[in-house]
Amino acid sequence: MAPQYAPSLRSRLPLVAFLLETIFLILFVFFVKIEQQHEQSGRESDSKLFISSYAEFQDVHVMIFMGFGFLATFLVRYGFSGSGFNVLLAAMAIQWAVLINGFLLPQRHHRREIHISMKSVIEAELCAASALVAMGAVHGKTNPVQLLLMALVEVTGFVVTQWILRTLLNADPVYSIMLLHVFGALFGVMVSWVLHREGIKPEHEKEKTDRRTGLFAMFGTLFLWMFWPSFNSALVGDYRRERGLKLTVIYGTYLSLAVSVVMAMSVSMLTSSKGKMNMVHVQSSALSGGVAIGVAMTAVHQPWIAMTIGFCAALLSALGYRYMKNHMLFAFECHDTCGVLSVHAIPGILGWFAHLFLRLASSESTIAVQFAVYHICVLLITACMSLVMGTATVTTKPPNRIHIEAMRDPNANMNPMKSQ
Amino acid sequence: MAPQYAPSLRSRLPLVAFLLETIFLILFVFFVKIEQQHEQSGRESDSKLFISSYAEFQDVHVMIFMGFGFLATFLVRYGFSGSGFNVLLAAMAIQWAVLINGFLLPQRHHRREIHISMKSVIEAELCAASALVAMGAVHGKTNPVQLLLMALVEVTGFVVTQWILRTLLNADPVYSIMLLHVFGALFGVMVSWVLHREGIKPEHEKEKTDRRTGLFAMFGTLFLWMFWPSFNSALVGDYRRERGLKLTVIYGTYLSLAVSVVMAMSVSMLTSSKGKMNMVHVQSSALSGGVAIGVAMTAVHQPWIAMTIGFCAALLSALGYRYMKNHMLFAFECHDTCGVLSVHAIPGILGWFAHLFLRLASSESTIAVQFAVYHICVLLITACMSLVMGTATVTTKPPNRIHIEAMRDPNANMNPMKSQ
Amino acid sequence: MAPQYAPSLRSRLPLVAFLLETIFLILFVFFVKIEQQHEQSGRESDSKLFISSYAEFQDVHVMIFMGFGFLATFLVRYGFSGSGFNVLLAAMAIQWAVLINGFLLPQRHHRREIHISMKSVIEAELCAASALVAMGAVHGKTNPVQLLLMALVEVTGFVVTQWILRTLLNADPVYSIMLLHVFGALFGVMVSWVLHREGIKPEHEKEKTDRRTGLFAMFGTLFLWMFWPSFNSALVGDYRRERGLKLTVIYGTYLSLAVSVVMAMSVSMLTSSKGKMNMVHVQSSALSGGVAIGVAMTAVHQPWIAMTIGFCAALLSALGYRYMKNHMLFAFECHDTCGVLSVHAIPGILGWFAHLFLRLASSESTIAVQFAVYHICVLLITACMSLVMGTATVTTKPPNRIHIEAMRDPNANMNPMKSQ
Repeated sequence: MAPQYAPSLRSRLPLVAFLLETIFLILFVFFVKIEQQHEQSGRESDSKLFISSYAEFQDVHVMIFMGFGFLATFLVRYGFSGSGFNVLLAAMAIQWAVLINGFLLPQRHHRREIHISMKSVIEAELCAASALVAMGAVHGKTNPVQLLLMALVEVTGFVVTQWILRTLLNADPVYSIMLLHVFGALFGVMVSWVLHREGIKPEHEKEKTDRRTGLFAMFGTLFLWMFWPSFNSALVGDYRRERGLKLTVIYGTYLSLAVSVVMAMSVSMLTSSKGKMNMVHVQSSALSGGVAIGVAMTAVHQPWIAMTIGFCAALLSALGYRYMKNHMLFAFECHDTCGVLSVHAIPGILGWFAHLFLRLASSESTIAVQFAVYHICVLLITACMSLVMGTATVTTKPPNRIHIEAMRDPNANMNPMKSQ
Repeated sequence: MAPQYAPSLRSRLPLVAFLLETIFLILFVFFVKIEQQHEQSGRESDSKLFISSYAEFQDVHVMIFMGFGFLATFLVRYGFSGSGFNVLLAAMAIQWAVLINGFLLPQRHHRREIHISMKSVIEAELCAASALVAMGAVHGKTNPVQLLLMALVEVTGFVVTQWILRTLLNADPVYSIMLLHVFGALFGVMVSWVLHREGIKPEHEKEKTDRRTGLFAMFGTLFLWMFWPSFNSALVGDYRRERGLKLTVIYGTYLSLAVSVVMAMSVSMLTSSKGKMNMVHVQSSALSGGVAIGVAMTAVHQPWIAMTIGFCAALLSALGYRYMKNHMLFAFECHDTCGVLSVHAIPGILGWFAHLFLRLASSESTIAVQFAVYHICVLLITACMSLVMGTATVTTKPPNRIHIEAMRDPNANMNPMKSQ
Repeated sequence: MAPQYAPSLRSRLPLVAFLLETIFLILFVFFVKIEQQHEQSGRESDSKLFISSYAEFQDVHVMIFMGFGFLATFLVRYGFSGSGFNVLLAAMAIQWAVLINGFLLPQRHHRREIHISMKSVIEAELCAASALVAMGAVHGKTNPVQLLLMALVEVTGFVVTQWILRTLLNADPVYSIMLLHVFGALFGVMVSWVLHREGIKPEHEKEKTDRRTGLFAMFGTLFLWMFWPSFNSALVGDYRRERGLKLTVIYGTYLSLAVSVVMAMSVSMLTSSKGKMNMVHVQSSALSGGVAIGVAMTAVHQPWIAMTIGFCAALLSALGYRYMKNHMLFAFECHDTCGVLSVHAIPGILGWFAHLFLRLASSESTIAVQFAVYHICVLLITACMSLVMGTATVTTKPPNRIHIEAMRDPNANMNPMKSQ
């Protein structure tokens, strides 16, 4: 049974979606054009670039809508509506990301207009992925309208962070966008923590899983797992001088994921009192190798380094999912429904450390110190922005806007922000 | 429980399939060859064309077998056998479409033989898609043998219509093949209407949906939704002068679908008395943006126009699905199981209007009038052919061929054509 | 309910996996590098090769993890853990295959190191496919640790066979690797037969199927079915002189599969006493066309030959699945859970015969005899190696290593090798 909201909310979500969609449409009328690749240049390589980009875009597209959509179906109560609602959120987040990306991070030749290209669409999908990661932490604690607005705020925050990193620190776009996991996870956990303080117990009944829906979640996990090499390599340039890097990223991600899925299963069985594989743990931690290698990828040149990163990421992630989640709940009163902290934040930060270590090992001392300072600043800015934006998302919402009488049955009350 | 047919039918379907398959095989022996791309020309661009086409072909392939196959699983009674039977129908329809396409619409250099190429296979799959759309209207009202024969007649009718349009009106192949939605939907509805007149009530029990199978239908919907840009762009040429058009079609379809999924959900919630998302409505109407833009695509050059088309298509389609289906049943005694009229015919005609309007707006008055006449003729011929063929399909079948004692239990009788 | 193993086993599987993974990692440290395509040559064609290979690799990747993973879910008891365990097995088999392939079958320029490239990864995935085929015969008769070790032995045996064929007979790599179905199936059946002799009745309860999990199995089947053209063509070279062959393989596989799915359904309905489609039969036999054409593909140049091969393969496979499985059980006391003998071995040998016949028909008599001797040797070596390795796998395992008290309930005992 899906959560039932009060009639006031039921009629509010479609109106909000309708209104936002109309606003997006008007913004598109004035600012967005389709890039005419054939007009700019008749270069032979253009069409090759297109072919390759389109296949990678499709892989990322499948991950966003199929992968994330069905990953959350292990929660019995979020199976049907969850996968549908994921599509709504992602579709709106992508449109907003195209706009906000175009405004804040314009491509070189187009100052006035936003040009839709494979690159801009893939970037928009990665921003949407960041929002979907954040959603994982608050599943079951918010109503759909809140989720929708939160997704748009998250995308805005992430793009603003990108803008700061690129403007202040001249950061590499590919590297900074891969921090989407860290940003999304910290943002989501922060929102969850602020919501929690307002005095409601997490409803564990909502974390119930089911063997049947588990197979659907397995689908989502596998789609994410299989296409992750495309996810990491999608924005690594296709030009010949970067072709080697692209291949290295693909093979590295592939190997890292192969190791992390083996480790995730091993750790899950070892830490279970009955020696059974907990598929929810596995489904989450199997992906940690891809997250970690994504942050470290430009510095990884050997297969064994990629595998070691996958090894450590899965170890930390599986142990974190198993033990840290409950500690978080009791120590910090922070409830993290899908364990995004273990699945996205910890492996992301591990990948960041690996990146730092690999660069320091291969550089001279002067450059190494410079890089270390720059590298630490990038993470700090990302983390601060995500925590600040996460807190701001909850607290700046005017109470009368979110005063929604959400209820499942007359006696229970699931809305954490209800003012009574 | 799947419908149980009388033993006479049970042994008839495999025999019919076996016989048809043997006939196809013999026709392939005499007429079909595999195109030897490397012999014709050593052009470098050939291999690039192949690479791009193969990826798009795979996307279309997934849509036909996975998308359409699982879309119909929201009907509880059609889950298991439905997805299997869809594969049988599509596999036979494709083989037949390769043959009939090759006979009626030969490619330039091959008058005597049919050459299998990526283009011919993709065209065959689009014809099969047209047949699968028509099936949607009659699910639960026909037996498998009837469905199989109907699919082959539908493909024949669609290819004949293509031939008329290209011969009489010199129509653009890409544009005329995109009317497959209109043709399929009208054909299916017509068959359903003629079957209905013979005096049987549609069994609403067969429209029962289930939350569990709903997730499978979600899979089918998502596969269709995600790969629709490839579906629309597959036949738009890969040569450099058309590259810009191909990109425009891909981005346009992508944006149109993103808007239509948001609108489909909003309208579904708004029109529901309880404010709930009806996933069957959503799954159907979310695709309407792709149908509409498919017909209009060669005239759409701005993202916002694509989005507006998606917006209107989803609005009309969702309202149509919600309100028109029952009116159709009572007013015209026409039952449309999967609502193909709202999902394929109405958005298709909307796209046709958009195409007309956009061309008129951008042309001089003389050319505009010429185009309008041509454009109206194309739609009229397509609609007439589909309605005539649909009617003919049912009435020309000799009664003794379709006199099948189909029954589910001794008292109920599901076969609309039973002569008793 | 998944089978419950004794605590000793529960803690053993993760330790074995952990140990093996560590060994693999150490071997990767010393021997494996990522191929730097851009350093070797700046040729324009390289990037094109990459683009095409990556898309095909993704198709094969989806088949291994999604296709094989969900194919086995028609067994009710293997749904949840089966698809998860399949990922574990495949991920380890691939890593091991990369290593053993690199040691035994080094690529030209790299005698000392193993270079990871698209080709080496695709070859490793095909070796893993061979192991997954073998698993099909022993599902439900072994514990996870045994399955894992068996998979690694199978991969080793298959690569050693490849090495023998290429060294002794100078066999074509593409042709010899396509015998993976024959090797895997015979290996699996042999293991199953040896296990059986030790005196345990196959538990038919484990073969129970369910309509609900049937839809998941349908997913697995469809993913295998749809992407099989990529599976067969993945290793056929991309260079211009082989482009024609690659296209022929793709179209041939496509047509063969289209015919075999129709025939599988027809035969399944005809041989059923109630005229119903047995989806388990269909799911298995629909793929036989792809297996058969895979072995014969380099000799097939006409579409109708491909279709005839698919026709015969599905006929034999469906009849074999229907009638032979039980005969095998009673006559040879060999139980084959997923019917791999009918699905992989028989179509594979049929394809081998078709290959022989087609070559003999098109060659002069002297060359024909030479080819026949060579061709027969290839099959005999493959079959002998698989049978010997299969037997050796079971018998060489020290009893104390596999003495595992596996039990599902206190009275039942599922472990065939228990020494009591």
